[in-house]
Amino acid sequence: MKKNALVAQSGGPTVVINASLAGVVDACLKSDEVGVVYGGCNGIEGILNHQIIDLGAQVSTDELINQLKLTPSMALGSCRYKLPKEADHPEVYEQIRNILDALNVGYFFYIGGNDSMDTAAKLGEYFARKGSDIRAIGVPKTIDDDLAVTDHTPGYGSAAKYIATSVYEVLRDVRSSNFKTVLVLEIMGRDAGFLTAAAAMPRFTGDVAPHLIYLPENDFVMAEFLEDVEELLKTEKQVVVAVSEGIHFADGRYVCEGEDPSKQEVDSFGHKQLSGTASYLAQVCKEKFGVRVRSIEYGALQRCAAHCNSKVDVDEAFEIGHVAVKAALEGETCKFVCVTRVSNNPYTVEYSLIDTKLVANAEKKAPASWFNERKNGLTQEAADYILPLIQGNIPLPEKNGLPDFIKLNLTDYVTVG
Amino acid sequence: MKKNALVAQSGGPTVVINASLAGVVDACLKSDEVGVVYGGCNGIEGILNHQIIDLGAQVSTDELINQLKLTPSMALGSCRYKLPKEADHPEVYEQIRNILDALNVGYFFYIGGNDSMDTAAKLGEYFARKGSDIRAIGVPKTIDDDLAVTDHTPGYGSAAKYIATSVYEVLRDVRSSNFKTVLVLEIMGRDAGFLTAAAAMPRFTGDVAPHLIYLPENDFVMAEFLEDVEELLKTEKQVVVAVSEGIHFADGRYVCEGEDPSKQEVDSFGHKQLSGTASYLAQVCKEKFGVRVRSIEYGALQRCAAHCNSKVDVDEAFEIGHVAVKAALEGETCKFVCVTRVSNNPYTVEYSLIDTKLVANAEKKAPASWFNERKNGLTQEAADYILPLIQGNIPLPEKNGLPDFIKLNLTDYVTVG
Repeated sequence: MKKNALVAQSGGPTVVINASLAGVVDACLKSDEVGVVYGGCNGIEGILNHQIIDLGAQVSTDELINQLKLTPSMALGSCRYKLPKEADHPEVYEQIRNILDALNVGYFFYIGGNDSMDTAAKLGEYFARKGSDIRAIGVPKTIDDDLAVTDHTPGYGSAAKYIATSVYEVLRDVRSSNFKTVLVLEIMGRDAGFLTAAAAMPRFTGDVAPHLIYLPENDFVMAEFLEDVEELLKTEKQVVVAVSEGIHFADGRYVCEGEDPSKQEVDSFGHKQLSGTASYLAQVCKEKFGVRVRSIEYGALQRCAAHCNSKVDVDEAFEIGHVAVKAALEGETCKFVCVTRVSNNPYTVEYSLIDTKLVANAEKKAPASWFNERKNGLTQEAADYILPLIQGNIPLPEKNGLPDFIKLNLTDYVTVG
Repeated sequence: MKKNALVAQSGGPTVVINASLAGVVDACLKSDEVGVVYGGCNGIEGILNHQIIDLGAQVSTDELINQLKLTPSMALGSCRYKLPKEADHPEVYEQIRNILDALNVGYFFYIGGNDSMDTAAKLGEYFARKGSDIRAIGVPKTIDDDLAVTDHTPGYGSAAKYIATSVYEVLRDVRSSNFKTVLVLEIMGRDAGFLTAAAAMPRFTGDVAPHLIYLPENDFVMAEFLEDVEELLKTEKQVVVAVSEGIHFADGRYVCEGEDPSKQEVDSFGHKQLSGTASYLAQVCKEKFGVRVRSIEYGALQRCAAHCNSKVDVDEAFEIGHVAVKAALEGETCKFVCVTRVSNNPYTVEYSLIDTKLVANAEKKAPASWFNERKNGLTQEAADYILPLIQGNIPLPEKNGLPDFIKLNLTDYVTVG
């Protein structure tokens, strides 16, 4: 009997998370072995609430698949729900299995980052242990690029392209003014600095800036930072600094906590909510050097700027959706789709399947070889890694001067059982 | 004898200020009546310091003109120098005239906003009164769109397209989360809300958000704002609010001053430096409603996002450069290039020349007919004005995955006299 598929999305948004979704749906629709392609709204949390739509019916043409592919941020909605351990809450696992069985789902695809891969791994193992033939495949995404094992993760390339492009534009902006200025740019990245590293790309392609760059892989030393800025101000009219939101002092305190530690918030995974690092450092420079200071906090803009997508990233994300479906149809489970870089020139990759457990909850960081001795700049190795991932751009179709993004009906639920 | 041309840029950056520069240079290079095309670095301030380059020689091909056209932020640098009154400092006027005479300049083009048009007007009048045949033409630019007389100003359309596009993307970003959220977006505009109004375009093209929008044309009433948010939170999972940086209470105090009035800075024209309005309002909502809040301050990003340019804007800016040169060659002086909208469907404009004095130091504001009764939303009239200006996009040529912007040599000065 033909089995159905269920796909859902989880974690934070990226520009290409729907490209992977489109890839999954496209491959399922084109396969004779898959019946209905269900979409779970708001991740596992929504699936538990029976918020499941007939996604295949809503994107039934190549044109709609393409529109979905170029639409940023989870079209199915997301969740930050952390699946409990089976030992603690076996009923949750049973409930999910019952829902999937009721819908005759044989293929389950979960698109997300670290925490989502953890969910996919737990479910896949549970299904296997219980003798169910439901196959669970993880489809990676994250702008942080901090997933272990894989060379890079869909979503990173587009975020990196936006950051590199925008920083290059901002360099022109700050230079058009005649004032002595310190500009500090703040980029996402709690523990891994891959995305902030993209800010250095103008410097690797012929510009002199950004002059300084600080990633959370190293301890931040305020005295050295101020020394470096002071030295640069002797010769440069504008000093441009890029920092990760997650940079911290040697004692582990975040740099932004210098401002007002009482304002710190924590998300549902216990991660501290960070912000204000750039404005804090700018303020420190202002007080110390008496120059004009500016800061830019990219915030949500860096994870949804579809209008500045990377073609390489979009195409890979879509392809990875196809690879995930192929794997499930071939009987694989508890796997995620891994990218291996074969060559930089010409840029080529291979896809393979790796145990989801190897990536779930494991975090990758930028290697030591990416940093100069002073830890205030990057080496050519970083550029060699990043530049191939930000090549090309797929222009968005326009309607009324705005991008023509897809609008799914997320309330037309199917009946479960 | 053939006369030379001198062109310079002043004020704040826009995406298309170099498109106007490219238009001026292109028209001069193609005219038999113009000799050398000089570029003044850092506006009038640089010209007074003899920082003048042979710009025509640096952009001598159509390819280079096109590259200049698509490069954001003053390629010649800028200044915020306020030309004194002739009565107070006649020697400054004489000095400028001597420099222009030494270079055999007959055509002077100044690209900028309100303050720059004031400079162009003062110089043009001075030249005329002294019997000089140097013609001074103002070429308008501003992202604020607050220049009087003209229907709209180059630079506005691209900034508006970026804001409208980014807000549309951010709406998808905030909705992909499952949390009750108030998101406040802060857009530039000290006294005029034209650019903030562009944030409403998703709502006029089929979306329900942004739900609330506040422009500096109206007094901001905190109690009404909180009432409106409270009402919306009853039915909406995410409430999105767009505000101008310059919104103020009825007593004239800026909304952001509520946070810490002592932090206010003033620029060289005596304008207050604003920021923090969105984060302040978000904080107020958090305390009042206990929901998750987010804020985005677009800052410099909204005036340099060349990768999201408006084709209509780029093309008009270039054309206005041509019109300025034609006017100067026909003997006009003390004029600026004005845009009149002939029709919205199809969108067509006409260019004409207006006394620079009429625009210098005069400010335009969004008309009362743009606002709903509650002053928390816009009417269709605003959309009818904005939408034609954000149509189309000219993709930027890429190099190494980054935009291939032009790099002028700004230190190879010509000898003056």
